[in-house]
Amino acid sequence: MFAKDLIDLSSFSLGELESILERAAFYREETGRRTFRVLEGHNITVSFWEHSTRTRLSFELAIKELGGRVVGYYPETASEQKGETMEDTVKTLISLGSSAVVFRHSLPGLFHRLAQKVEVPFISAGEGCYQHPTQTLLDIFTMRQAGFDLQGLKVLMVGDILHSRVARSHMCALPLFGVEVAFAAPPPLLPDGMVPPGATCYRNLEEALPWADVVYLLRVQKERQEQGLVPSLGEYAALFGLNLAGLSRVKSGTCFMHPGPINPGVEISHEALRALENVAPERVLFRKQVKNGLYVRMAVLDLLVGSG
Amino acid sequence: MFAKDLIDLSSFSLGELESILERAAFYREETGRRTFRVLEGHNITVSFWEHSTRTRLSFELAIKELGGRVVGYYPETASEQKGETMEDTVKTLISLGSSAVVFRHSLPGLFHRLAQKVEVPFISAGEGCYQHPTQTLLDIFTMRQAGFDLQGLKVLMVGDILHSRVARSHMCALPLFGVEVAFAAPPPLLPDGMVPPGATCYRNLEEALPWADVVYLLRVQKERQEQGLVPSLGEYAALFGLNLAGLSRVKSGTCFMHPGPINPGVEISHEALRALENVAPERVLFRKQVKNGLYVRMAVLDLLVGSG
Amino acid sequence: MFAKDLIDLSSFSLGELESILERAAFYREETGRRTFRVLEGHNITVSFWEHSTRTRLSFELAIKELGGRVVGYYPETASEQKGETMEDTVKTLISLGSSAVVFRHSLPGLFHRLAQKVEVPFISAGEGCYQHPTQTLLDIFTMRQAGFDLQGLKVLMVGDILHSRVARSHMCALPLFGVEVAFAAPPPLLPDGMVPPGATCYRNLEEALPWADVVYLLRVQKERQEQGLVPSLGEYAALFGLNLAGLSRVKSGTCFMHPGPINPGVEISHEALRALENVAPERVLFRKQVKNGLYVRMAVLDLLVGSG
Repeated sequence: MFAKDLIDLSSFSLGELESILERAAFYREETGRRTFRVLEGHNITVSFWEHSTRTRLSFELAIKELGGRVVGYYPETASEQKGETMEDTVKTLISLGSSAVVFRHSLPGLFHRLAQKVEVPFISAGEGCYQHPTQTLLDIFTMRQAGFDLQGLKVLMVGDILHSRVARSHMCALPLFGVEVAFAAPPPLLPDGMVPPGATCYRNLEEALPWADVVYLLRVQKERQEQGLVPSLGEYAALFGLNLAGLSRVKSGTCFMHPGPINPGVEISHEALRALENVAPERVLFRKQVKNGLYVRMAVLDLLVGSG
Repeated sequence: MFAKDLIDLSSFSLGELESILERAAFYREETGRRTFRVLEGHNITVSFWEHSTRTRLSFELAIKELGGRVVGYYPETASEQKGETMEDTVKTLISLGSSAVVFRHSLPGLFHRLAQKVEVPFISAGEGCYQHPTQTLLDIFTMRQAGFDLQGLKVLMVGDILHSRVARSHMCALPLFGVEVAFAAPPPLLPDGMVPPGATCYRNLEEALPWADVVYLLRVQKERQEQGLVPSLGEYAALFGLNLAGLSRVKSGTCFMHPGPINPGVEISHEALRALENVAPERVLFRKQVKNGLYVRMAVLDLLVGSG
Repeated sequence: MFAKDLIDLSSFSLGELESILERAAFYREETGRRTFRVLEGHNITVSFWEHSTRTRLSFELAIKELGGRVVGYYPETASEQKGETMEDTVKTLISLGSSAVVFRHSLPGLFHRLAQKVEVPFISAGEGCYQHPTQTLLDIFTMRQAGFDLQGLKVLMVGDILHSRVARSHMCALPLFGVEVAFAAPPPLLPDGMVPPGATCYRNLEEALPWADVVYLLRVQKERQEQGLVPSLGEYAALFGLNLAGLSRVKSGTCFMHPGPINPGVEISHEALRALENVAPERVLFRKQVKNGLYVRMAVLDLLVGSG
């Protein structure tokens, strides 16, 4: 039923995505109450060629919770320096006896080619600025958990749309669920060609905020700033950072999400963050996103690897 | 009964410390003979922001021996470079589903604040020059194992008292057990204000040695020397290093301890070390300290996390 | 029956080597079908002081497959910077409760001395340019799996014999099994004194190829080239790299082996590799070598540690 790999969310039907979310709900309910053996006897290669804390640990925990073993390979400390090519490395890792590969790399466009070369499931943990499928799945899962009906839900994506794999995955899957997506971003970070037909594009955060049920703050990649692609952080924060004035413009039930890690004082001002956490902590979904990441990844591994 | 966290030994009563040591004795007896499930289903975050071999491995083994899972986070290879703040990182690690945090950092004064922000037990694995509680517990445990009665036992702390978290933890807990502590250190490494009331302070190792039942050699931090806080290593070794002449001055049953790793030729001369290991290996407790570290950490995890 | 340590293959009789291979055959058959408890309750220290991917992961998986726990210590990120001596480190790791040590280091001549200092089995995972025993065992195992009778089998070792621990281990064990070994290497990489009595030494790959049943390509260490010990990679590839012309000269059943990772375009040309993989993939044994490494290491750990 399922595609072999999880690289591009457009390979999955709405029904398939729903069955992943349903499985995640099962794991949210049952994790900690019982021991799972879905991946017993399975080695899963986890290979991150780009820094990450939460996504890597989340996948590794998901594997362990399901009874599987992690074969970790993080090339900053290994044999890449020997000139081993990436394809050879991945094949070698699988030759050691892996049932699946969880892979992160900063180069977009690489994963489909690699996945074709290996017989086991190839699961993206973030591919350059292409897609980040499990992030989108956990975000959808979190929106529902917050009580939202996805049909007609208004999600405002804020910030560096251009370089964001999260934004690309969201654009791909959210409309399937009936979610309306709009954008607020500086023009260089949201080129006209990227805006999906019919989507609203705000050049000003203040104006956009009253529209949103969910304000989804994207991470500003400080690395990008050095390349001159992002305005100064101060300028960005002034125009597209969420501050106290912005908070006063949102609807009463609006929730706030961020894929993490946050740059405090950039995507959201220190004051706004403190105000939200004190006054309406249930509307700040950051930690829930992290927590749900575990359940969604357990669901993905179960359905793509466990039943394989 | 117990405090939520293990950060400062002064939060613990003598009775509580004794119950940790009693539990450690149980684990010394039973480890290797049976399988423990005290931490089954528990993920424990182990986060070291400072280099360490033995303490980190000791905690990780203790977790695994009790049936728990290690969620390792060592920021030198992770997302700290992304500017994630430490508090946010710790909360994120816990959101992933940790039952406790084992933390080491070079900054003193940080742990109480962090521990207040998290609901799970926060266990210090060494906090700057503040305290190192499990080191003190394992040292007390080792002294008893060597046959000493703690009441009236004379422990001589030698070396860099000023920067030593081990010395601070020892000063805090040893007197509770009736141990008498004295010091031998160069004046810049033992300022007057640090000496506890009533404690003897020797400015000369030779003179101090005949007094001691236990000679506790502190590690000279070579890094500190570059800052000009420690005299030259040669000068230090000549005045406060234990050498053959020093050995001839100790009592017949005196034992030797060191938190490791030793700088051979600095805290103890090569000749003195060889002589001790050949003639009286039972009086050199270094390896026993390492081994007991495992049991004491198992006891701490059991009592603070397992029964929680 | 067995030596305590696996450092030098010449410490093992043919019968002992055969019993390791027999045990490996058992694990090739049974791994994935059942759960092993041979190392249950055992901690095995895995300490690599030199970069490695496949050997390290292979040993770690082998330990886990047998039910044991890995105590990993990779000094690039640990306390070696504190000046801890290697011997003290190894003893400390064992004091933490290890049943065996798996060790890799770039310095030859170190392992026998270290092994004498510890009571538990000391297993080499590659020792400088001295020996790499498990590589040789897995290669013999792979030759047999490819259908070869070892008695009278003609194995041609190609390349940097001088610096190769693999070549040294092969020279030590292959003749025991009745294998004939010959060499093809540039003179500076195969000094006269290294050639075993009676072995043929070709100064030209083309001439040597028709002789071989197995062509064993050694890895060219690019690091060595900077020291001027290896000719330019282009020159090397032209004279000792396997290319299409070379392929046309081998016998019809000749198989190809490489300890990995390959430098494509150096030890074998891109065209020759592609041709082999398309036309006669069953004669390219690289992946089988990786896979068999797991079974052979399980066998070694079982026989040296599990039954101890």
